[in-house]
Formats: sequence, structure tokens, C-alpha cells
Amino acid sequence: MMNWEEAVKEIKPVSEMWLKRARERLDDLTKPRGSLGVLEELAARYAAIKEEIPIIMPAKKIFVFVGDHDVVAEGVSAYPQEVTAQMARNLLSGGAGVNVLAGCAGAEVFVIDIGMKEELIDAPELINKNVRKGAGNIAIGPAMSREEAEIAVNVGIEMALKAYSEGASLIATGDMGIGNTTPSAALFSVLLPAEVEDVTGRGTGLDDKGLAHKIEVIKKAIQVNGRSFGDPIATLAGVGGLEIAGISGLCLGGAACRMVVVVDGFISTAGALVAMRINPSVKDYLFFSHQSSEKGHRIFFKKEGLRPILDLDLRLGEGTGAAIAMQIIEDGIRIFNEMATFEEVGIAPGA
Amino acid sequence: MMNWEEAVKEIKPVSEMWLKRARERLDDLTKPRGSLGVLEELAARYAAIKEEIPIIMPAKKIFVFVGDHDVVAEGVSAYPQEVTAQMARNLLSGGAGVNVLAGCAGAEVFVIDIGMKEELIDAPELINKNVRKGAGNIAIGPAMSREEAEIAVNVGIEMALKAYSEGASLIATGDMGIGNTTPSAALFSVLLPAEVEDVTGRGTGLDDKGLAHKIEVIKKAIQVNGRSFGDPIATLAGVGGLEIAGISGLCLGGAACRMVVVVDGFISTAGALVAMRINPSVKDYLFFSHQSSEKGHRIFFKKEGLRPILDLDLRLGEGTGAAIAMQIIEDGIRIFNEMATFEEVGIAPGA
Repeated sequence: MMNWEEAVKEIKPVSEMWLKRARERLDDLTKPRGSLGVLEELAARYAAIKEEIPIIMPAKKIFVFVGDHDVVAEGVSAYPQEVTAQMARNLLSGGAGVNVLAGCAGAEVFVIDIGMKEELIDAPELINKNVRKGAGNIAIGPAMSREEAEIAVNVGIEMALKAYSEGASLIATGDMGIGNTTPSAALFSVLLPAEVEDVTGRGTGLDDKGLAHKIEVIKKAIQVNGRSFGDPIATLAGVGGLEIAGISGLCLGGAACRMVVVVDGFISTAGALVAMRINPSVKDYLFFSHQSSEKGHRIFFKKEGLRPILDLDLRLGEGTGAAIAMQIIEDGIRIFNEMATFEEVGIAPGA
Repeated sequence: MMNWEEAVKEIKPVSEMWLKRARERLDDLTKPRGSLGVLEELAARYAAIKEEIPIIMPAKKIFVFVGDHDVVAEGVSAYPQEVTAQMARNLLSGGAGVNVLAGCAGAEVFVIDIGMKEELIDAPELINKNVRKGAGNIAIGPAMSREEAEIAVNVGIEMALKAYSEGASLIATGDMGIGNTTPSAALFSVLLPAEVEDVTGRGTGLDDKGLAHKIEVIKKAIQVNGRSFGDPIATLAGVGGLEIAGISGLCLGGAACRMVVVVDGFISTAGALVAMRINPSVKDYLFFSHQSSEKGHRIFFKKEGLRPILDLDLRLGEGTGAAIAMQIIEDGIRIFNEMATFEEVGIAPGA
């Protein structure tokens, strides 16, 4: 089994030569050059990552990492902590948003207990990789030890490798964990960097007073744990979360295997950011699915010069935005593979 | 057969009571209220239009209206006029962008000759509804007579009624016609209203000089035909086009039959705008698929207070953006129908 340090060494930038070849193919299709915009960019990058023309239609898998956060004791969430386990059951029985949208995209959903407090019994479909029973309350101490953070990142890498060995080429991140916009905002603040106020939003539904309190809690968490922020893994251990660490690992492992990793919303992007800070070449393999309505997500895209595929005011997590974006990516792949060329239909290419 | 004046009388605003019922259903699902953003809005409006809970999964049809424009003689397009017929053949043989994307969405594509110059032989799949052989050169006279405009609008209504009688509930507009961003910009300028400069873009690929010339041609067209702009149909006859008129009719006929009409890009929106100016209640039935990269489209959305579903820098037309948006609409419908409720899984609804 590959660990995170080995995975990081495997990650190579995407081939410029293959990008050029893919764009030439797109320019031969019966449309004005570039007129399918983002669809063309997605297909070109996909072909270049896989180094294949035409593109082999991808098998799709979505990984939903589930973890708890003792920082909910500070009153940062509109839902009680028990809902994490209740929603994990809902994910396993197929009733959650991501289950429905994965069905639309033709993707399989995997649910991983990476840091739940409650042990689910009678849940044979749950992938049991529990590293610890919930992240610690970051307002008073670290989320986890450095060793736990490394183990959790390695779980994500293991999931990516498993998907790869089973023939997947398009994987996506998802999360479930009551309270997890709080550690995510803390990670954005430290790693972008950005002011806490600029990256902290209402989560699942805080009012103005709740939001002001959440900002104070995050500031305190950064202050309490700040001395240990030596590298991205240490920051993750200090103010992150177990499901966020799993997502970081999925991004690293996906890039190491030359798979496309579709990043869901605010929480998943925090995990992706940790991976990008460990190795900047990871960015080439990440397709950011959507602009969440959670404040702070926009600042990430602006600072990193990235553009998300969709902007649908989603703020559910679970991988819901990633599932929708997988359909758009498949649209681009089918355009790349199936449209007629100018030569085939006897039209001069024009502009 | 219903004519356009009869269709207009049939159009009723969407029921507020059904909208409320649909939103209540969405609030019962296992997610924070409103956290699936645009997907929820689309599903609620769809349910309210059809007055059904759950929503019956729609049969989807895309109508691509094809017409020529003698204004290309003024040098307003990067492609020669013959390409209209060549692309019609490509659409019929399944090699065009919309064919591929309709396949992704599970939609059928219909190609209608409503105003082509060239008569396609050996094209049994082409729906022959030719009103006249190309719109006139609007820089020197009207695009067509008022009678021809009414006949072309009635063709669109006929297509909507046919789709309805065959069980469709989700239809979409598409266009093909070399030169048709020119009449579309003219219609936006007159009907929004807006300055010609603000609604005129590069079409399939004009350079700066070409763009400046195109603006002059559109100003001239508005001046030459301006005296006849008594009502939206008269404006359409003066500076519009036959495929644009067909699209206006599809919007009116779709709304009259209480179907959802997905509007493609810049040209389709010009047709939709004519329909909206004939009867403002049409707006309730129109789902605007995407923000085109053609300048002027943004101004339409801003002035009308509307938000498109996607922003993917598309500028191909044909119904390509509408086909992609149909997938997102179906995502919303499946969320509405298939997600578990809080009651079913025993979670308190929370925020």
C-alpha cells in the first residue's frame, strides 16, 4: 500500500504535448473553434491526463468520507452531532441527495467511516476505516495528532488506489460531518491565507449572532493550535478534520494514479487545498465542480485563479455538486469522441 | 391547428398554490432547507407548471429551426451562407454538437427547414415547413412580410402542439442559420431596449474590424425597418429571421400547453424575448439554459431579472446549451421525487 509521501512523489504535471493534441482534435470538430467553451477545456484536460484519444468512457465513483467534530460543543452548527450518524445511515440506504444525483450521473457511491463518534451496527456497506472517534474540539486543542492525520490521509489514498485497480478513471470527493464548515474555514484562513471573516459562512443555517460566534471560535482555534502549523499535514492535524484528511488523500492518490478527481464543495475544497499545498501539481488533476453558496469558496477560486464548472447555489456537500459536474464532464468527453469532423462532412473549417 | 393569437390567449401564469406545495415537499427532504439551490427552484417550478407531485419523468424533445439570412451579403459572418445547408445535413446525420448532447440528455432532436435557401434532397428526416427561401437582407429592407412572420411563428406553435400530443413535457429550442447573431442583436436592441453596441458580439469569430462593421449594419437595419415596429411580430418581420420566429412560436405554444420550454443561447433568447413581449406570462414557462459568451446575452438577463442555469462559455447554438440544461433539470426532478424525507429516516428537520 502506498503512503502519502510515496504518492506525492508519483504526481507529475499533465503533458503539454497531449493537451495540444487534444485541442487539435477539438478544433477539427464541426463547430467554430472553442465554441463549446468549458466542455472543450474539460475534455482536453481529461484526454491529456489519461493520455488517450479518443477518451475511454470513464467508470465513476464517489467517495463520501464521514467524520465528527467535537467543536460542535461550541455551538457552531444548526444541527446536533447525532445527525452525522443518522445521515450516514441515509447515505447507506440510498436516500440522501448524493445517492440520487450519483444515479443521474451513473456513478457508484462509497461511504467511509473515517472519524465517526458513533459505531454503526448492521451497516455492512459502510467502509470501516475509523481513525479516531471524532476530531477534537479545535477551540481548545488539536483536531488530532500528526500521526492520526497521516493515517487519515493514507485512507484517502487507499480509496483512490482501490478505485484505480477496479478500473475507475473519474472519482469524486464527498463529505458528511456535522460542524465541518468550521474546520474547513480554519484551513482556508491558514492555507490560502485569508481573514477568518472572509472565509466563514452560515453552514447549514446560522443566524447573524451564530455566524459572529463561529468566527470567534475559528479565530480561537487558529490561535490555540497555531504554533504547530509547520507544514500542511500539521495544519490539518491542528484545525482540520478526519473526513477532510481523507479527501486530501483521495486528491493525492487520484493524481498519483493519473485519474481525474472531481472536487465537491466547500469542505472538499478545503481537503483539496491541503493536497495542493503538499504538491502543487495535484491541481492539474482536480476538476472543481461548483461554486458553493458558502462564503469563502469564492475567495478560494479567486486566489487560486480557478474556475468552477457550475454555480447553482448548492451548499449540501456529500458530493452532490461533484455528481452533477460528472455529467458535464461526460458531456465534454462525448463531444470529444462523437462529434463529426469538418473533413467527414465536407465543410471548410472557417473561423 | 392553433394559431399564435389563440395560443397567446391560452397562456396562464403558473399557480402560486402549486409552487408553495412543491416547496413544502422540498423542505421535507433530508437536507438543510434550500441547500440544493437552483436544483430546488427548477424542480419547484416544474412541478407547479405541470401541477403534479411527484413529477412524471419528462419525455424530452429539442427543436432545431433552420433558416438563412441574406444579410450575410453585408459581410457580417465568418462563415459563408452554404454552411447553413451543410450543417443541416450534419444535424440530420447525427454528427453535430446538439446530436451528441441530446444523446447525453436522452432527448430527441428534430430539424425543421423553416427558411433555408437551399432545398435539401434525400433528407427524409428533415421537417419541411419552409416559409420562404431565407430572410431578406435587413440592411436594405425587411426580413420578411408580416404574414410570413405569422406563418413562421405558427410553425413553432405547431411543433409544440405536436410534441405535447406525443407526450413530451420538456421541450427545447435550437437554431442553425449562418448570420443569425445579426438579426438577434437587432431584436435585443429594439425589444429590450439596449444600445446596438451593447448587444452585438463576434458571432462565430469576427475580428475587431468585422465587429465594428456588424454594428453599423445592425444600426442601418433598425433605421431602414424602424417605421414598421408597431408590435413584437412587426419587429420580428422587420429585423428578425425565420428560425427566430419559429423559436418564438415554440415558446408560445409550449406555454399554452403548460410545458417547460428550455431556451438555448443568444439566438433562441431573441426568439424567447419576442414571445415574452407578446405575452409576459410566457416567462413562467421558460427555463434559460445558459449564459452565452456572445456579448448581449448578459444584458438580457440583467434587464429581465433572470438567471441562466449554466455559464460554460458556450456560443454554438443548435440547442447545445439547452441539451446540457435538460440534464440539470432532470437532476432536480429526481431529487424532488427520490430523496428520503426527514420523517422516513427519523431525523428532526433542523434549520
